[in-house]
Amino acid sequence: MTKILIIGAGRSAIYLIEYLLNQAETYNWEVTVTDMDVNLAQAKTNGHPRAKALAFDIRNETERRRIISEHDLVISMLPAFMHGDVARDCVEFGKHMATASYVSADMKALDSEAQRKNLLLLNECGLDPGIDHASAMKVIDEIHALGGKLVSFKSYCGGLVAPESNDNPWGYKFSWNPRNVILAGQGTAQYLEDGEIKFIPYNRIFSQTDTVTMDAYGRFDAYANRDSISYIDVYGLKNIKTMLRGTFRQAGYCKAWNIFVKLGLTDDTSKITHANKLTYSSLIASFLPTSKGDLKQRLKQFIGSAWDKETEVMMDYLELFSNKPILMEEGSPAQILQALLEEKWRLKAGDKDMIVMQHQFEYTLPGKTGIHKKNSSLGVIGKDEHYTAMALTVGLPLAITVKNFLTGKFKRYGVQIPIHKEIYTPLLHELTEHGVVFDEA
Amino acid sequence: MTKILIIGAGRSAIYLIEYLLNQAETYNWEVTVTDMDVNLAQAKTNGHPRAKALAFDIRNETERRRIISEHDLVISMLPAFMHGDVARDCVEFGKHMATASYVSADMKALDSEAQRKNLLLLNECGLDPGIDHASAMKVIDEIHALGGKLVSFKSYCGGLVAPESNDNPWGYKFSWNPRNVILAGQGTAQYLEDGEIKFIPYNRIFSQTDTVTMDAYGRFDAYANRDSISYIDVYGLKNIKTMLRGTFRQAGYCKAWNIFVKLGLTDDTSKITHANKLTYSSLIASFLPTSKGDLKQRLKQFIGSAWDKETEVMMDYLELFSNKPILMEEGSPAQILQALLEEKWRLKAGDKDMIVMQHQFEYTLPGKTGIHKKNSSLGVIGKDEHYTAMALTVGLPLAITVKNFLTGKFKRYGVQIPIHKEIYTPLLHELTEHGVVFDEA
Repeated sequence: MTKILIIGAGRSAIYLIEYLLNQAETYNWEVTVTDMDVNLAQAKTNGHPRAKALAFDIRNETERRRIISEHDLVISMLPAFMHGDVARDCVEFGKHMATASYVSADMKALDSEAQRKNLLLLNECGLDPGIDHASAMKVIDEIHALGGKLVSFKSYCGGLVAPESNDNPWGYKFSWNPRNVILAGQGTAQYLEDGEIKFIPYNRIFSQTDTVTMDAYGRFDAYANRDSISYIDVYGLKNIKTMLRGTFRQAGYCKAWNIFVKLGLTDDTSKITHANKLTYSSLIASFLPTSKGDLKQRLKQFIGSAWDKETEVMMDYLELFSNKPILMEEGSPAQILQALLEEKWRLKAGDKDMIVMQHQFEYTLPGKTGIHKKNSSLGVIGKDEHYTAMALTVGLPLAITVKNFLTGKFKRYGVQIPIHKEIYTPLLHELTEHGVVFDEA
Repeated sequence: MTKILIIGAGRSAIYLIEYLLNQAETYNWEVTVTDMDVNLAQAKTNGHPRAKALAFDIRNETERRRIISEHDLVISMLPAFMHGDVARDCVEFGKHMATASYVSADMKALDSEAQRKNLLLLNECGLDPGIDHASAMKVIDEIHALGGKLVSFKSYCGGLVAPESNDNPWGYKFSWNPRNVILAGQGTAQYLEDGEIKFIPYNRIFSQTDTVTMDAYGRFDAYANRDSISYIDVYGLKNIKTMLRGTFRQAGYCKAWNIFVKLGLTDDTSKITHANKLTYSSLIASFLPTSKGDLKQRLKQFIGSAWDKETEVMMDYLELFSNKPILMEEGSPAQILQALLEEKWRLKAGDKDMIVMQHQFEYTLPGKTGIHKKNSSLGVIGKDEHYTAMALTVGLPLAITVKNFLTGKFKRYGVQIPIHKEIYTPLLHELTEHGVVFDEA
């Protein structure tokens, strides 16, 4: 009997939990699903004979250590900054761990001890990061096997709304943690372009964008995502000239979102006290440097040439110039903006989300002249507002890779991400059965 | 015998420690001075018979609790985010505490328990915040005593370099924690102007500045400082129309500093890996959106109309276009910029710093028409690079107010800042003996 603990039963966990429970009898697993909100855990386990649903607060150290010590493998669906304590407990008690999040400094620090104890610390095994690593490394390994050399690698991914459910001018609805969408792009993005290291600070990340067209899915804005440069070594791409990981939004989104950045509405470090004395329009007014005149005209003037009819429609849709009250008593500008967007960008009953991913490879081959190009593209449409493409593509890679590890399909320990053939081959193979199929052309 | 513990013996603590040791015999105090670096503590206590110098790391919880429990009053000169643990220990063990930092959420949370136990948690009792509160409240109380009403209150303060030591085009040298200077202005500034709440985000804080001229001291840029609005209640200024606290820099500084903000050089949330492969000029190049052409020309083009001859001289002074190597292996853009500025903006032997403060009051008086104006202004010049005006004006208010509390000059408990007459009157009076004299006109 292998005991699997899942911490966090939010919207990204639905496919993960179902997959593990469906296989639980076959592999003799017992699956404990925990959440701060026990109702979430119960709804997702639904009385399954091999499942337990528990209420559990990660901040309760005694409880956390007890429950982790009683399981064999822990899957953390918590926000990334909370993985550290869980990981330390796992390594102390000799338990494996798996997450869909970026490898953190906390995680890295545990690598050698985990290796010594033959413990797996699987990370970056969701969609992006996750499926992107697996599907990119498949092509990279194929090119390398032919003796080829990568010159350029660009990889984009976006969690958007399916065309048939796209009824707002932003082309966006929340299929995952809204907070992450509001704070997206903060920090310094780092990538390599034509052999030059490029940095983009937050104040320019939504204006220095690319446009990418994918015939089957539409036209997208792409902004640079975090630190692409660190993946040059990870992917084994020494001497590559261009290395960029980017995030997709519907074309036009970034220009409009940049208005929020310029205004200051995405700051999460300062609290606005007495926020409930303001309306959304007075909030905008307070952020504008000028004080007199029609609000929309003032905003238009402040934004300058980046303002157009499309932008205006997007702003109007959010009721930004209305007397819509702010309901929270105190909150950061980002929290106040989030409250509005959670209302406007909610997936309604029957709404379908959409995942789009594209890798663009440029490479040389021995004995052949010129640069060869290949694109690897993916689109996944969700079933409804619960069974989202996001939950599927985040949850299944984690579930499948955990199964492959527990059933001995690969033996790797310490901090791992899905870049090795013995991890990504069975993963990509099984994902095709769930409609996650890359088109390489 | 009263036992006083000082945590942190850095450059801001020199006057604080000397003052308390000078009075130690008179009031029967024993003063323990601690620092991570015991040499700093020893240099400042200098074998004084009533002093002990100890090495002490605040992160060592057992040690921290033991040492706090053995004293009666704790003065924390630590960075503000470290006060929380000390304050909790103080309240638990029944000890008073004093800091020069802004009242934090941690501190506020301890207010009622401290009040119940008759413990003082003195905060914001340095220069700014500190002397500004005391000197402003003196005038405000005088106006209120005449039945007057404040219409506008603006208060500015800057820690700069004295004219006779000003040998660089920025008019700035570090007289306190350089890190705070690099990160200054991050978050959302909040103030009240002509009855309207105004917010300024970080990306505009150094461009939406005022200019203030003080005849005796020069012309200054002023940028809005944190949350001014919360001081409306604190100062008892209900119905005031304009309420602004601002920070002074030499005229021209803010325009030049804004270049760093626009480039992205002040971000402290992302690490640049392999930073030591870059030079300062290649760092700037990597932050610029364009790739071809002369670096300075590209920067000039990027900055646009805000670039002028003065700015160019300031940038050249920092060797930003040179092949000066970056020495740290990994660091945030802010840390890399700080390393350069610590070299360029160091107070040299004999250099004098300068503190400038000005409050601008506008008020009505009963039975009189029109708006009355009063300015309260302060300038303090340091003695040398150790005995700085900054250390004097940060350390003495704390030392004097601690003395006044311990000798029963005021009896207030819980979280306090120097806004009450029984605190600020003896404080301002004694400060005049040390050259801290406001000019009211």
